[in-house]
Amino acid sequence: MNTQIKLASRPFGLPNRDNWQIESNPVSQPGKGEMLVKIIYVSLDPAMRGWMNDAKSYIPPVQIGAVMRAGTIGQVVSSDLEKFSPGDFVVGNMGVQQYALSDGKGVMKIQPGLAPLTAYLGVLGMTGITAYFGLLDICDPQPGETVVVSGAAGAVGSVVGQIAKIKGCRAVGIAGGAEKCKYLIEELGYDEAIDYKNEPLRAALKRTCPNGIDVYFDNVGGEMLDTVLTRINLKARISICGAISQYNSTEAVKGPANYLSLLVNRAKMEGFIVFDYAKRYMEAITQMAQWYSQGKLKSREQIEEGIENFPEVLLKLFSGEKKGKLILQVNDLD
Amino acid sequence: MNTQIKLASRPFGLPNRDNWQIESNPVSQPGKGEMLVKIIYVSLDPAMRGWMNDAKSYIPPVQIGAVMRAGTIGQVVSSDLEKFSPGDFVVGNMGVQQYALSDGKGVMKIQPGLAPLTAYLGVLGMTGITAYFGLLDICDPQPGETVVVSGAAGAVGSVVGQIAKIKGCRAVGIAGGAEKCKYLIEELGYDEAIDYKNEPLRAALKRTCPNGIDVYFDNVGGEMLDTVLTRINLKARISICGAISQYNSTEAVKGPANYLSLLVNRAKMEGFIVFDYAKRYMEAITQMAQWYSQGKLKSREQIEEGIENFPEVLLKLFSGEKKGKLILQVNDLD
Repeated sequence: MNTQIKLASRPFGLPNRDNWQIESNPVSQPGKGEMLVKIIYVSLDPAMRGWMNDAKSYIPPVQIGAVMRAGTIGQVVSSDLEKFSPGDFVVGNMGVQQYALSDGKGVMKIQPGLAPLTAYLGVLGMTGITAYFGLLDICDPQPGETVVVSGAAGAVGSVVGQIAKIKGCRAVGIAGGAEKCKYLIEELGYDEAIDYKNEPLRAALKRTCPNGIDVYFDNVGGEMLDTVLTRINLKARISICGAISQYNSTEAVKGPANYLSLLVNRAKMEGFIVFDYAKRYMEAITQMAQWYSQGKLKSREQIEEGIENFPEVLLKLFSGEKKGKLILQVNDLD
Repeated sequence: MNTQIKLASRPFGLPNRDNWQIESNPVSQPGKGEMLVKIIYVSLDPAMRGWMNDAKSYIPPVQIGAVMRAGTIGQVVSSDLEKFSPGDFVVGNMGVQQYALSDGKGVMKIQPGLAPLTAYLGVLGMTGITAYFGLLDICDPQPGETVVVSGAAGAVGSVVGQIAKIKGCRAVGIAGGAEKCKYLIEELGYDEAIDYKNEPLRAALKRTCPNGIDVYFDNVGGEMLDTVLTRINLKARISICGAISQYNSTEAVKGPANYLSLLVNRAKMEGFIVFDYAKRYMEAITQMAQWYSQGKLKSREQIEEGIENFPEVLLKLFSGEKKGKLILQVNDLD
């Protein structure tokens, strides 16, 4: 049987159990030009919240009644495609379900052995690629510059900080709670960690960034972005990767009131979507794999189990109760 | 006698008469390495409002008791400097006063004859240079793209629209009132004009920019910026030149709540300060003078008279009751 998670209704604020429909159906057999993939790991990402809204965005919303969109890792069961053979491990957007039919488009083979399979959803997957281009392409950080990262203990943020260090920058991470801050410093190598739940952010930025902020990689938005804007340097670069503080807000988004700091400091704020870099994914993956094999880049995944737990596990993205990349295991690995 | 306008106190909201001290003193005589300049025209610019605040910005605030900072055009009366001779016309930041002593730093000679003197405060001066770099360097507009300009009938905005047309773009101007809109179309050559006082901006942008907005040159900020963000195209560029809607606000600046449109559209918003381009001023002036002599670029100045009227005339920048560059004549032209 194939258990699937379908979008039943659009959430207002935080998604709840009623927004999902859990269905079990017999596994379909692949037709001509198709393969059947047993999905093992499902990637849980803040962007999913946006895909649930019926709003014009960079990709169409998930339709009501459709299987929820998600990045996944699976193993080919049977295949009518030349490029894929039974037993191959693959990564791609195959949705929140236990089995998927695929025509192979947008699906890539991965080599197990170099890294744990789950790393291909994290540091060696879309998460890592997002961090790579969002930091290097949008912000062009230079050695000695101060790079501030919000959501620093999160999937993307934890990679951004490590790349900043590899590039010779000072990395300052913002996260919620002492445990995460310890993780930033001791495991990820951030130079400074700010526990925004325990110290007013403005004062903390003053303390940890005495020379101001050259680069800000923003995963959080809202008041955090607004406060960072008060401490940026001339020609600062702000990369807008996300705004997790706003995704479940039922009120109007809070815009950065201090945006005129961009004028005073001749700074820029730029958004990006990792999909735009599709032609350069291999550049990022190759570089990240090299850093990973050299031990310069650590991958951390929090793996939860059971497809039926998807609605609850998803909320861990927004409650702050996870570190690193959140993954749901939906089938056993043989 | 030399009448001077000095800053007496810092304004809260719109500047009023009490914020200024009008003083008359005998004209000083130039010392060694100095010249005496009779100031004829004083440039009135929205940026002056910012210089009156006691806040960290791109240049220090004007000190209480100091002559108000301003761009000016004058004529040399006497000079101990090799580069300047009596009778020369000069442009530079010599302040709101009738006579200035100068060591020549930051002062340039201008050739009368090519254009009216006042054009050197407008299209051939800092105003034009601001439009030139703010549009071309920050936004790199391409032929066929749609360029939207707020404060389009203002000093900078009126030049931005004309440069956009020269570069083969569609130019859409936003201004307040039917008369200004007529001016945009009939005199400046804008393709479309939006009278924001008479039509909801969102609908007007939909009507005038059916293919979306590629470039936005913002002089206004506030809700206007926020609304434009809802209509930008992929890879749009927003140049933050100013935010005249916010300069006299006694409430917190309104941040652009729709800033996440930058993410969805992979767009950038960047501030700039014309002073950063000092080394390239000649590039802009040379190009603008060429366009001007070819009749491609029009200059329009609104000239008011009498240094003692400075406090009231300054307010015309904020009330919307002027078109083009606002200039105060403080001495007769011999």
